[in-house]
Amino acid sequence: MENHNHFMVALSAALAFGSLTIIFVLRWVSNYGDGLAWDGGPANFNWHPVLQLSGFVFLNGLGIIAFRLPWTHQLSKESVKLIHAALNTLAFFCAVMALKAVFGSQSGSNFPDLFSLHSWLGITVVSLFGIEIALAASIYLFPITPESWKAAFHPLHVFLGRFLFGSTICVSLIGLTERLIFSLNDPKYSDSPPEAFFANVMGLFLVAYGVAIFWISTNKSWKHPGPPIWHTSGLLEDKIK
Amino acid sequence: MENHNHFMVALSAALAFGSLTIIFVLRWVSNYGDGLAWDGGPANFNWHPVLQLSGFVFLNGLGIIAFRLPWTHQLSKESVKLIHAALNTLAFFCAVMALKAVFGSQSGSNFPDLFSLHSWLGITVVSLFGIEIALAASIYLFPITPESWKAAFHPLHVFLGRFLFGSTICVSLIGLTERLIFSLNDPKYSDSPPEAFFANVMGLFLVAYGVAIFWISTNKSWKHPGPPIWHTSGLLEDKIK
Repeated sequence: MENHNHFMVALSAALAFGSLTIIFVLRWVSNYGDGLAWDGGPANFNWHPVLQLSGFVFLNGLGIIAFRLPWTHQLSKESVKLIHAALNTLAFFCAVMALKAVFGSQSGSNFPDLFSLHSWLGITVVSLFGIEIALAASIYLFPITPESWKAAFHPLHVFLGRFLFGSTICVSLIGLTERLIFSLNDPKYSDSPPEAFFANVMGLFLVAYGVAIFWISTNKSWKHPGPPIWHTSGLLEDKIK
Repeated sequence: MENHNHFMVALSAALAFGSLTIIFVLRWVSNYGDGLAWDGGPANFNWHPVLQLSGFVFLNGLGIIAFRLPWTHQLSKESVKLIHAALNTLAFFCAVMALKAVFGSQSGSNFPDLFSLHSWLGITVVSLFGIEIALAASIYLFPITPESWKAAFHPLHVFLGRFLFGSTICVSLIGLTERLIFSLNDPKYSDSPPEAFFANVMGLFLVAYGVAIFWISTNKSWKHPGPPIWHTSGLLEDKIK
């Protein structure tokens, strides 16, 4: 019971910090920016932070902890696997649209593409995320893959998944900093105008969301009960249910 | 044997990427900056990235994997604990000096302190690192702490340690980006001058060092053999050796 309460506190913290991040990024682009539009102008760029934070990071975080949510313990592991895959695929779709948004808004300006560490790391993370999804889908969703392959790939799948989630947050914080320095002028970022304070606080909420998701996903006592899905008896048990 | 070879590849990668990061940061401040000096001027600032990368991040990474290095398996766990503590304390000392370097160089200029997300996160990470060391020292190095407390604190100690290591790398990448935007002028960062390319590559090496350290520290098959140090029989065994 104490363990369940601890889980609920961690989950509530994750949802609260995740929601605050989404609210803040929407207010950031509407109050301090030109809002959202898909027209190749400055408002087109704003889809980039909105889709990365409320789509890629938030949905990927939920995808990571899907197996650990107590109400998914009632479902067969095969069903939770599909929820996990769907959330991460949706997250990837948001990331791709977010990249489209930034290239779309810059093609109209003379601002160069891909000069910054943010862009190098960002493209790498989204590409690796796509590869992770493709690999995981072919190994875990196709019934013909040998069970031994599923078991062998699992540690790498978990490692890469956690690494990419942490990296997405890191790359977002670099992008946030870059944006504040480039867009704030008189007062500048270093003059600490309200927008700078607001966006910095958003960065802290984003980090707090990451901490909560990592805490939930690495705590051994909250693993999905039962044998791993690639374990034949586990599969049979699931089918019998 | 295959497991040992895999470990040696991962360790070599960590040391190679860590060394490349150190070489790059030293060349960055000497070739593109004013070198190193502790005089309150621009060269004083340069100690900040040098101490953070070659001190804080590099030594902290080694401290994290100390228990997993095969040659420390010959030592008693008590001795490895002291090596782990010494490396992390030295890392913390470098971080504190690195903060001193940046405040020292800015007191002479009219550039404000603590306006950026980089500074907020950086101060938080270094403070939490200090708290982590103080807590761990009082729990694990004082022989009077009950064994049950040592066991209970361990998951939090490991979680916080890994989180802070990852955060240090993230905050360094934000700082690197900030520095490139602020210091490059005609050509600007967005014009991709050689310094920008050089520093971006340094950022990639830093990330690669982090990946290698995380890979070593989370791989279950490379845990230090034997019972945990707070396990009484383990302590006795160590004493008998």
